[in-house]
Amino acid sequence: MNLSEQSELCDAIRLFLVDSVSKTGGHLASNLGVVELAVALERNLDTSVDRLVWDVGHQAYVHKILTGRGDAFDKLRSMGGLSGFPKTSESVSDAFNTGHSSTSISAAYGMACSRDLLGQSHKVVAVIGDGALTGGMAYEALNDISDYKNQLLIIVNDNGMSISNNKGGLSKSLDKVRVSAGYQRTKIRVKNRLSRNAFGRFVSRVISLTLTAIKRLFIKNQFFESLGIKYVGPIDGHDLDTLNYYIKNALNIQGPVVLHINTIKGLGYQFASEHPDKFHGIGPFDPESGELIRQSSESWSHAAIDCLCMQAEHDPRIVSIVAAMASGTGMNLFADKYPNRFFDAAIAEQHAVTLAAGMAISGLIPFVDIYSTFLQRAYDQILHDVCLQNLHVVFLVDRCGVVGEDGETHQGLFDYSFMRSMPNMTILEPFNRETLEECIRYAACDASGPVAIRFSRGAVPTIEGTCSSINESLCLRNGSDVAICATGSTVIKALNVADLLSEQGISAAVICPITICPVITDGLLGRLNGFRNIATIEASCYDTGFGQALKAYMADVDSSVNVIPFAYPNEPITHGKVSDVDKMYGMSPEAISQRILKEINAS
Amino acid sequence: MNLSEQSELCDAIRLFLVDSVSKTGGHLASNLGVVELAVALERNLDTSVDRLVWDVGHQAYVHKILTGRGDAFDKLRSMGGLSGFPKTSESVSDAFNTGHSSTSISAAYGMACSRDLLGQSHKVVAVIGDGALTGGMAYEALNDISDYKNQLLIIVNDNGMSISNNKGGLSKSLDKVRVSAGYQRTKIRVKNRLSRNAFGRFVSRVISLTLTAIKRLFIKNQFFESLGIKYVGPIDGHDLDTLNYYIKNALNIQGPVVLHINTIKGLGYQFASEHPDKFHGIGPFDPESGELIRQSSESWSHAAIDCLCMQAEHDPRIVSIVAAMASGTGMNLFADKYPNRFFDAAIAEQHAVTLAAGMAISGLIPFVDIYSTFLQRAYDQILHDVCLQNLHVVFLVDRCGVVGEDGETHQGLFDYSFMRSMPNMTILEPFNRETLEECIRYAACDASGPVAIRFSRGAVPTIEGTCSSINESLCLRNGSDVAICATGSTVIKALNVADLLSEQGISAAVICPITICPVITDGLLGRLNGFRNIATIEASCYDTGFGQALKAYMADVDSSVNVIPFAYPNEPITHGKVSDVDKMYGMSPEAISQRILKEINAS
Repeated sequence: MNLSEQSELCDAIRLFLVDSVSKTGGHLASNLGVVELAVALERNLDTSVDRLVWDVGHQAYVHKILTGRGDAFDKLRSMGGLSGFPKTSESVSDAFNTGHSSTSISAAYGMACSRDLLGQSHKVVAVIGDGALTGGMAYEALNDISDYKNQLLIIVNDNGMSISNNKGGLSKSLDKVRVSAGYQRTKIRVKNRLSRNAFGRFVSRVISLTLTAIKRLFIKNQFFESLGIKYVGPIDGHDLDTLNYYIKNALNIQGPVVLHINTIKGLGYQFASEHPDKFHGIGPFDPESGELIRQSSESWSHAAIDCLCMQAEHDPRIVSIVAAMASGTGMNLFADKYPNRFFDAAIAEQHAVTLAAGMAISGLIPFVDIYSTFLQRAYDQILHDVCLQNLHVVFLVDRCGVVGEDGETHQGLFDYSFMRSMPNMTILEPFNRETLEECIRYAACDASGPVAIRFSRGAVPTIEGTCSSINESLCLRNGSDVAICATGSTVIKALNVADLLSEQGISAAVICPITICPVITDGLLGRLNGFRNIATIEASCYDTGFGQALKAYMADVDSSVNVIPFAYPNEPITHGKVSDVDKMYGMSPEAISQRILKEINAS
Repeated sequence: MNLSEQSELCDAIRLFLVDSVSKTGGHLASNLGVVELAVALERNLDTSVDRLVWDVGHQAYVHKILTGRGDAFDKLRSMGGLSGFPKTSESVSDAFNTGHSSTSISAAYGMACSRDLLGQSHKVVAVIGDGALTGGMAYEALNDISDYKNQLLIIVNDNGMSISNNKGGLSKSLDKVRVSAGYQRTKIRVKNRLSRNAFGRFVSRVISLTLTAIKRLFIKNQFFESLGIKYVGPIDGHDLDTLNYYIKNALNIQGPVVLHINTIKGLGYQFASEHPDKFHGIGPFDPESGELIRQSSESWSHAAIDCLCMQAEHDPRIVSIVAAMASGTGMNLFADKYPNRFFDAAIAEQHAVTLAAGMAISGLIPFVDIYSTFLQRAYDQILHDVCLQNLHVVFLVDRCGVVGEDGETHQGLFDYSFMRSMPNMTILEPFNRETLEECIRYAACDASGPVAIRFSRGAVPTIEGTCSSINESLCLRNGSDVAICATGSTVIKALNVADLLSEQGISAAVICPITICPVITDGLLGRLNGFRNIATIEASCYDTGFGQALKAYMADVDSSVNVIPFAYPNEPITHGKVSDVDKMYGMSPEAISQRILKEINAS
C-alpha cells in the first residue's frame, strides 16, 4: 500500500468506526485518535509474531479491524461477540488482555525478557497513553527497564487526556515539550469535508506537517531521560509518513526507547473531537446529531453525588476525591459547587486513597469515588492506610456487580469480598434513592471509621421503601415460605423472583439489609427469624461473599435452616448485556425462582 | 542546644540504639542513618502540632527517643510495648501509621490540604527514602502535588539502598547527581573512635563538609523538575549545621519542595554500615561481634528457594522475580546460580506481578517471591493480569500468618482471603520440607494456571509426612472424637492441640490438606468423612477464610457436623511474640484445645 492508499484506509476506518459504534455503543474517541498509529504499527509489525500491547485496550478497535475482525463489529461487546478490549482468546494478534490502565510496559518488558531467554527475535511494542502514564505502575516499569539492553519500543500516545482532561506534573512536562518545540495544537489545521455516506457532514483530516519540519521538533524530555530511557519525539501521530519512518527506525534501536506521538482524541468525527469525554465510552447514538439514542433516567452515580452535595452544604469538612473520573462518577457536579473541596488524583487510585487517609486523620471527611473494578488498585491503601488506622474515609464504590458490555476486566464483583475482610470496614448497599440518601447521611454524619457504599451501573430503580437507620433490614414484601435476602442492586431482581414464585403458589418475603458488612446484624436476624428457607441474592462472587458468610453463620445458629445462595461464580465473567450474563450464570429471575422452588420442594 | 551538644546527643543516641536493639532486635541500620536528620527535624518542628510522616516508618526509632519514648525501648516490639513503627496511638508526635513503603507523600499532601481548608498554619513534612521512591504510589503523589501552592516539604533520604541495594533508572539518576556534583561517598571520611562503654570499638562520625562547600554542590535534578517540583540538594545528611540551615529554610518555601539529603545506612556502628542489609531488620545480636545470638535452623524462605533451584536446574524456563527483597526472601541463592533468570523489580510489587504475567504469556515460568503483607500492593495485578488470563505464574508468599514483632502493618493474614476469591487461583500450604518440595514441583511442572504457595516466617518444622500429590490431605494422627483440619504452618500447633486433648481423653485426628484453595477437595472430604466434630486451624483471618468456607460447605452436605473454626479476627493484630499474640486471640494450643473440649462436651 502506498501512502495515499493508507490514508484512504484511515478514512474508511473512521467512517466504519463511527457507523459501527453508533449502533453498538463502545469506545469511540480514543479509537478515532489512533487510526494512523494502528495502521502504521500493522505495517511495520507482524502482529501474529511480534508482540504489541495496547495499554487499557479500549483503543484497540482499529487493531481488531486490521487483524481480520471488522466483520464481527456488529456484535461488538455483545455476549459471544467481539470484546471491546484485546483478548488473546480472540486472535493471535492480541498479545495481552488489557482493561485497567498502566500495565503495558510491565507486560511488554516481561515479553521482551522472555524473548531473550528463549532465543527468539521478534519485536515487542507497548502503546501507552499520557493518561495511563500517571498510574504508578507505569513508572515502576519505566524505572525498572532502564538497564535493559535489547529491543523494547514504548509508544506514548499523547492526547492530553485521560478520560477527562489530564492533570499533574508529568502532563505539564509533556505539554512543555509540545509548546517549547513550537508544536502547538493550533498549528494542526483540520479540514472538514463531507463524507459520501449517509451519516455525512464530517470526517476531518490532519494536514500533515512535513517530515523535515517534524525533525526539528525533537527536543529532550527530562522525565524519561532522568529515568535513563532514550526518548524520541514528539511527532505527529496523524501523519502516516512520519509515523512509518519513526516506528520503523525506533524498532531497530537496542534498549528501551520512548517514541512520543501527539494525537487528537476523537479526530475525524466532529462531535467526538469536541467532546472527547462524552465519546470516550458511549452507548448507541445518532451519528448525525451526536445525541445518545436512549437518555437514561437518573443514574446511581448522579444520585449519589446529589446526596453528597446535600451533606457538603452543611459540613465544610466534606471533600471529594476521584481518580481521573470526574465525569464518569458524576463528581463534576460536586466540583462545580465546591471547587476547593474537589480533588482529582489522576489515574492513581493508590495515591487517591492514601491522600484521603491523610485528610481524614487531619479532620476532613473525604469521599473517594472510584469504580469497583479500579478500586482493586488501591487494595493495600484501603487496608493499610485507612482500615488499620480506622480512619473516617468514605468510599463511593460505583459500577458494582456485573457491568455488562465492558466484560471481565471491568466487572465489579470483587470489591465486596476484599473489603469485607478488612478490619473496621462497614459496607452499605442502598437499593433506591431514599436508602442511598440515608447511607450517605450516615457516612457523612454518624460514622467514625471507614465506610463503603456500593451501587451499580445504570439507573436508580423506583422501589418504595425508606429506612431510618443503616442497621435496619427492610421487609419489602411479606411472605412465609422463603425469605429472599437481597442486597442493594439485586433487590429489584428479588421482587421479580417473588412475583414468579407467587405464580407457583410460593409465598416469598423480600428482606433488604442496608448494612452488608458486618453480614450479621440484629436487624437482619430479626427479619429472618422463623424462616426455614433463606435465599440470598448478591451482586458479587460467591466464594468469600455474603451468602457464604450467612450460610456459615446460620449453621451455628440453627442448622436446620436452609440457606440458598445466589451469586456469581469466582470465574472470569464475560461481556454482554447484564440480562444475558445473568442468564448464563443462573442469576436471572427465572433461574433463581426455579432453583428456589426446587429446593423448597425437596426440603 | 548548641551544635556540639547536638552532636553529642547524636553520639549518645547511636550508642543507645545499638545497645537497645542488640537486646530486643529491630531495625538498626536505617535508624543509625537518620540520627542527625531526626535531631534536626525535632529542632525545627514542633511535632506535637506540625505533621511529620516517616515513610515505611522502621527508621522512626530516633524520633521516638526524641519524643519521650526512650525509656520504653526495653520493651520495643514486645506485646504491650513500643511498636517498631510510628503509631498515632503512642504519641501525638506520630502523625500517621506507616509500615508499607511509599505512602508518605500522599498522606502528607492530604494533611497539607486539610490544614489549608481548616485554616491552620502548621508545617507538613514527609521523609521518604530513595528506595521508597521506586514505589509507584510515591510517583503518583509527586505527579499530583505539582500544582500545590502551599508549604509541603519532602525530604528524600538517599542512602542508595532499599533493604538491599537499589536498582532502576531513578536510583542511577540520583547517583548521577551525587557524582556530577563531586559529592562522592569516598570523600566522607569516617573516623572510628573507641567508645567509652562496654561494647566499645566503634562509633564513627562524619567529618562534616563545611556549609560553603555544600552550597556549591547544588545541581539540578531532572526527575523532580520534570514533574514540576522544586528541588534542593544534595546535602550532607550527617552534618547538623547544614541540615538545620536547609530544613529551616525549606520549611518556609511555598509549594512542594524536595530536599535531597545523602546519608549512610548503619553509620556509627561498623558492622551495620558494612552490612546494612543484615542490620536492616535483625534479631538480638552481640554488639561486640555483630553476630546474631540465635542462629536459626533452615527457614521456610531458604528451603523454598532451595527447592526452586532444584526445579530450575531441569527447566530453563523457570525465572524468579522479587521486589527489592533478594536477601529477605532468600532469592539471592537463586540469583547466584541463575543470574540471567533473576529479576529484581525494586519496591514495585505491582510491576513485579505484571512483569511475571508478560513472561508467563510468552513461555517462561516465573516465580514471584513477595511477603504476604507486601503482596497486598499487587492485588489488582494478580487478579486482572494473572488470574483473569489464567497465566502460569507462581507466587511464593512468604511471611504468612502472624509475623510477630513487626505487628499490625506486617501481618500476613489477608493474602489467603483475597487470593481465594480470584478466578483460576490454586493456593497451597505445605507444612514441612517434604510437602514444600512437592508444592514447588507441582507449581513448576504440573500447573498451567496461577498457583500461590504460602509459608510462614521462621524455621521449617520437623514433622513426618510426605504427599505424592497436592490433592492429598495427609492424616498425621489418627483419632475418632474430632478431626483437626490444619493448614500449613498451623499443623505443628494442631499436633500440640491433639496432645493436649489426648491428656483429656479426647482422641483427635490431625488432617492436613495441602491444597487450601479450592477449599473443598476429594482428598479433604475423604479424610473428614464420618467426623461429627471438625476443628479448623488456619494462619489467616476468619471472615472470608478457610474455616468459614468449610463451615458453609458442610452446612449443605451434612448439617449435623459441627465445624469449629480457629482463625484470627478481622481486626488489626498487634505486635509481640507470636506465642503472645496467639494467647491474646485465643489461638494458643491451650485455648484451642479448651474450646474444642467444651464444644465436644456440649454436643
